Order: sequence, then structure tokens, then C-alpha cells
Amino acid sequence: MDLRTRALNLHRESKGKLELVAKVPMGSMEDLSLAYSPGVAEPCIEIKNDPSTIYEYTAKGNLVGVVTDGTAVLGLGDIGPEAALPVMEGKAILLKRFANVDAFPICLDTKNVDEIVQIVKAISPTFGAINLEDISAPRCFEIEDRLRAELNIPVFHDDQHGTAIVVGAGLQNAVKLVNKQIPALKVVINGAGAAGMAILRILQQLGYTNIIMCDSTGIIYEGREEGMNSVKESIASTTNPFGLKGTLQDAMEGADVFIGVSIANLLTRDMIDSMNSDPIIFALANPNPEVAYNLAKEWGVRVIATGRSDHPNQVNNVLAFPGIFRGALDVRATDINEEMKLAAVHAIASLIEEHEIREDYIIPDAFNEQVVDTVAKAVSEAAIQTGVSTLYQPALK
Amino acid sequence: MDLRTRALNLHRESKGKLELVAKVPMGSMEDLSLAYSPGVAEPCIEIKNDPSTIYEYTAKGNLVGVVTDGTAVLGLGDIGPEAALPVMEGKAILLKRFANVDAFPICLDTKNVDEIVQIVKAISPTFGAINLEDISAPRCFEIEDRLRAELNIPVFHDDQHGTAIVVGAGLQNAVKLVNKQIPALKVVINGAGAAGMAILRILQQLGYTNIIMCDSTGIIYEGREEGMNSVKESIASTTNPFGLKGTLQDAMEGADVFIGVSIANLLTRDMIDSMNSDPIIFALANPNPEVAYNLAKEWGVRVIATGRSDHPNQVNNVLAFPGIFRGALDVRATDINEEMKLAAVHAIASLIEEHEIREDYIIPDAFNEQVVDTVAKAVSEAAIQTGVSTLYQPALK
Repeated sequence: MDLRTRALNLHRESKGKLELVAKVPMGSMEDLSLAYSPGVAEPCIEIKNDPSTIYEYTAKGNLVGVVTDGTAVLGLGDIGPEAALPVMEGKAILLKRFANVDAFPICLDTKNVDEIVQIVKAISPTFGAINLEDISAPRCFEIEDRLRAELNIPVFHDDQHGTAIVVGAGLQNAVKLVNKQIPALKVVINGAGAAGMAILRILQQLGYTNIIMCDSTGIIYEGREEGMNSVKESIASTTNPFGLKGTLQDAMEGADVFIGVSIANLLTRDMIDSMNSDPIIFALANPNPEVAYNLAKEWGVRVIATGRSDHPNQVNNVLAFPGIFRGALDVRATDINEEMKLAAVHAIASLIEEHEIREDYIIPDAFNEQVVDTVAKAVSEAAIQTGVSTLYQPALK
Repeated sequence: MDLRTRALNLHRESKGKLELVAKVPMGSMEDLSLAYSPGVAEPCIEIKNDPSTIYEYTAKGNLVGVVTDGTAVLGLGDIGPEAALPVMEGKAILLKRFANVDAFPICLDTKNVDEIVQIVKAISPTFGAINLEDISAPRCFEIEDRLRAELNIPVFHDDQHGTAIVVGAGLQNAVKLVNKQIPALKVVINGAGAAGMAILRILQQLGYTNIIMCDSTGIIYEGREEGMNSVKESIASTTNPFGLKGTLQDAMEGADVFIGVSIANLLTRDMIDSMNSDPIIFALANPNPEVAYNLAKEWGVRVIATGRSDHPNQVNNVLAFPGIFRGALDVRATDINEEMKLAAVHAIASLIEEHEIREDYIIPDAFNEQVVDTVAKAVSEAAIQTGVSTLYQPALK
């Protein structure tokens, strides 16, 4: 059977992928009198008197709301909240499988930014954190920014930061392998959507200074008039230090790194030939990358990572988000801040020791059992040190 | 250990009562490629092309949102959405335990009726049905009415209808026991909140015509000026056919049935003595009924039901709501209409055969294993016959 048939059969036979079960005994009237009326009044009263005890007496502290409006689902685009539900259920069970985090899909039948912010705030009492998923750019930026500012639980848009964190980790190892120095590298990012923006921000924090960002119009630069918006204006002012103009092909000349979050098969041999020695390519378009893995190797690309599980160096968000939520929830963080994201980058990169790094092994395997604990520990520590844990104080320096 | 300590320990040790688990294998990369990317795109595309297939490929068809704003929680009142969460988790695991229905708590941080309606509509794509819970009257009436009108999934306010259905069932059996005829009976309902209103409506549909409704001001009658609102005006116009005025004590004179959804210990011996022969009392105030069970028996009450599990004839919503949701979901009903509620009344009553009915056995036990299936089957059939099932057509008459 082909993948399509097997995937449809799996979903149909199980009627979805998610189930809710009781963690307490329910066999006797005595059990019910503790879990429900009249006993349940006691934790209610405790929480009423001290709201922080909601983390002691309910599932909130381990519960993530997986929120979408269905506007940017996988490579399928704006398919709506109903059609997005299988992805959200999938995300929820990945969180359970990899990090023992309980998660529940919230598919919103509205695309209005104000409404989405208002609704997520209104439903937040149930949740210990919010994972935004498959919300189109640039709406996703405003939604995440506003929710982070207005909620006291972490809000994390995985399509942006999950991808960016794994790319950042893989790139750290790839750069070590080719023995180059970060600040001097020329990096081209093609695609200024949710993931591209987050990759840009992570790389800037990792010390990359010569980043050229391209969109479908070409290189983004200060003073460009075509296809600009406020997000791209801010890109223009913090990237492209030499004021390059032109096409993607122009940008690629002399580049050390190409990161594509764009469309299939757009890298030509000429573009790759024009790159610096030991080129590194992250070709993340799904399901078909910006350049096919085998073609890239044939054309002399030193290191290539893709989104695909059938090639080495898979950029798989599952390396990042389960450990990040685990780490944030473990210390009751109020935010997932930049320091916590950078801690995740370094934690994922560190899972491959320097002497183990190879061209086909810059990113650890999704089933490496150390990943979640290593990421969670680093994220928890960063949360404590930056003062966003409500359970622990930073250690004295 | 006392109940309080045991209840708090249970909740603390389990960190809440609810967990989300995967229904599909998650062991290998192959498993993940079916449950998540890339395989998950297939059910997404199917649902996009035919929205009704969401019931085939996702958990929606078995999933109930348990929605509250925390304004009328148990006997605790307006304790807020956070403090209400233990009750909602409890409700969710009762639905799983008794009817294998998956349910998830949504605790809303708003009391605004328009916002609640808007939010529940917006989050509805995930759910196969909505259970409204612990929302104060009269707001709960408008919220339920509007959501029923505007959503194409069932919406059911259990505090109203669950209680009313069990009361209706118990009363059917009690009236058989005392060998009276329904239309002639004088029924006093004390309490015009959510449950009182729903009990009134069910009894009217069961053929009771002489119902006197009282609130804290006394008997509700046409032309009363004190403490009226639009809901009570409508009560006045459809009850109290002889235009009684006065206090609860006045209403009780010659009454065959008293149903209290009010406050503890307000029935006096004088009131009960003034009732008709073979008086029937449903004293449902929690945790302490309108008259103590033993006192009522001592004062000559023939049949008494309470909300307590330590006396016979417990009016326990768990007899109704699990089977009602099971029945509605099984036939993908778009509504839980009056016919379905009445079907549940008769199904619950029928679980005690006529020759088995006793003074201390008018309501089946909550752990009677036939309850859910019997109620679900009756509710499903009523849904089909009234044309609200989207799976099955009514049988030809």
C-alpha cells in the first residue's frame, strides 16, 4: 500500500489519534465522591483562595493548547480549521510521545487577529502553555507577540522557532565541520515567512552578521520599493550590510550557507557553483527541497540538510518543541524567551560531539533518547537564570 | 482521613485527573510519517474536499468540550474559571468512565454572554458536542439557546437538563408507586434557577399541568411585581393555573409533589403535614437537602429523593449525561432536542420495572451497567426519528 492509503487507513481505523483518559481510579462511588462531587469542591476552594495551587490540583501544569486557524497547514496552505485538525492531533501526540506533555488541539474558526488573541486569552485558564501552529505570516508574528505580552504562560509558535532552533543547531555543527568562523560567513535565507524570520533572528543571536534575506521579489534591501511591508522593512535594516540588490542568483555568489524555506527545485547548478568553497545548504521546502539531496551532493555541496526523513540531516521540529515545552513546564516558566531558545540550539548541537560530526551527521536523530532530556534541562536552566521561572530563583553568580 | 484531606491528596498526587494519550502507534519513524508529516496531509486533504469526513479521520466525533465560565460551580458560586477546573476535569473523566466519550475542559476567562457565544463557536471545529457546565442563571439560558441555534453540533447545559431528566424519571416511577394520575397532581418547584427551569419544562412535557413555581419571593404568578424578569414572566404565564399567591407554605397546601432546587432545611413539618396523602419529595439542595432524609421519613413522606449518595434515590446527573452524549454522538446528531431529553427520561425510568419500584428505589443506581446503553439507544432513536441525525434517516412510519 502507498503512503496515502496507509495514512488514511490509520486515521480511519482509529477515528483520530487522540484520546482523553482518567489518571485517577473511577471504580467505586467512593472514587467518584473524591474525583467529583462532593470531594472535588475541596481543590476548587483551595484554588479560589490561592490561584497558584491550580498547578498542584489540576492538569494545567502539564497541558499545552495546540492552537491553529488552519491558514498555513503543512504545505497545503489555508485549508481551514477543520482540515487542520489531523495535524493538531498529530502535534499533540508527538508532545506526549516525546516529552510526556499532555496537549489538546484548538482549531479556531476565525482568521481575525484580534479575535484569535482574545479567544486564546479567554481559554488560557485550562493550559500551562500555548503552542501556535500553522498560522500564516505575517499574522502569526503579531498573534505571538501580543499573546506573549498579555499572557503569563509561555506562547511558542513552533513553525517559526522550532524550525529555527533545529537549523541553528545543525548549522553550528556544520560550520565546525568546514572549519570556518561564524562572523565572516555569508548566509542567504530564501523565504521571509514565519520560519525564515525566526531563522534570521536565531542566526543573528548566534553571531552571524552577513545575512542576505530573499523573497520572491529577490534580495531584501533598504530602500527597496516592491513587495515590502513593515516586517520586511525591519529585515532590510538589520541584514544585508553591504546593500546587495538583485536576484537570489546574485545573492548566492560567494555565499557560505544557503537556507531555503521556500519552494522545490529552485537552486540551479550555476547558483551552487557560484558559492564559496565547502558550501552548506539547508533545503527545507517540503516535501521536495530547494535542491534534491542527491543532486546537491553530485554538484559538490559539502553539507546538505533537508526536511525529509529519507535523507541524512533531517531538520525535524520534533528535536526541539517537545523538550522546549517540557523544560518550560517543569519550572512553570511564564515565557519561552530568546535565551531559552538559544539554550535549545546549543543543547541539540551538543548531542553530537565534535569528533562525531560528519557531513551526513550534523543533526541528531529524532529518536535519540537523550534529546528531550538534554533540551528540557537546558531550557529549564535558561528560564531560571533569566527569571521567568515562577518555581525557582536564579542561582547567585 | 476526612473527605477533604483525601480529596486534596488525590488531586495533588495525580496532578489533576485528566491525561491525553495517543490511539495510534508512535514507536518508529514509519509510525510518525503516517500519524504526522508527511502522511497526515492525506486526511487533511480529504477533509478539505469533504468536510463531513472530519468525523472519519479525527477524534471530533467522540469529543465533547466541557465549557464553563466558573460562575455557578457546585454550591460554591462564582469562583472563577481557574477554580472551576477540577470540576470540569471531573466531568470529563465521568464521560469517559461511563460512556467512553472523550471530553476536555474549557474554562473561559470571561463572563460576557456575547463573548462566550462567540468563543464557543470559534473553538467548535474540534468538538462533536458541547457540554455547558456551571454557568449562572439566567445567562445560561441565553448562552445555550444561542449556541443551539448557531452551531450544528449538540449543545447541552447539564446543570439544567441532566438534573431535570433524572428528576423526571424518578417522578415517573414515584407516581406509579403511589398510584396517582399525572395530570391531576399538584407539583411545587422551589427554585427558579437553571435546574428549576429545566425541571419545569420536562414536567410540562410529561403532562403535568398544575405546577406552582416558587422563588425566594414566594409563589410566581401573573401580575406579581416583586423580583420578576422575562424568564419569570414566562413561568407565570405557563404555570399556576389557579393563580395562587403567597409563600412557599401557601403553595405546599394540598401539594402531591415537592421538588426543591433551593437551600438546606427550609421545609417545615407544617408544610409537609399540609401536603396531600402519599407526598413525594425531591429535596435536591446540596450538600444538605431542603429536608433531611430521616426527618422526612419520620414526618410521613412516602417517597424522598435527594442529591446525596448516602441515601436511597440519589438524583445523580451521571445517570443522564453520559448516555445522552453517547446517543447524540453515535448518530452525529446536530442537536439534543426535547424529544431526545424525554427519551432519556423514559429510558432511565424504565430501568426499574414496575414490580420492582419501591419507596427507596425509584431511581436506578449510578453504577447500574445498563444505564448508559439504555439511555444512549433511546436518545439515538429519538434523534433519528426527529431528523437531527446526520447519519441516519427516520424510519418510514
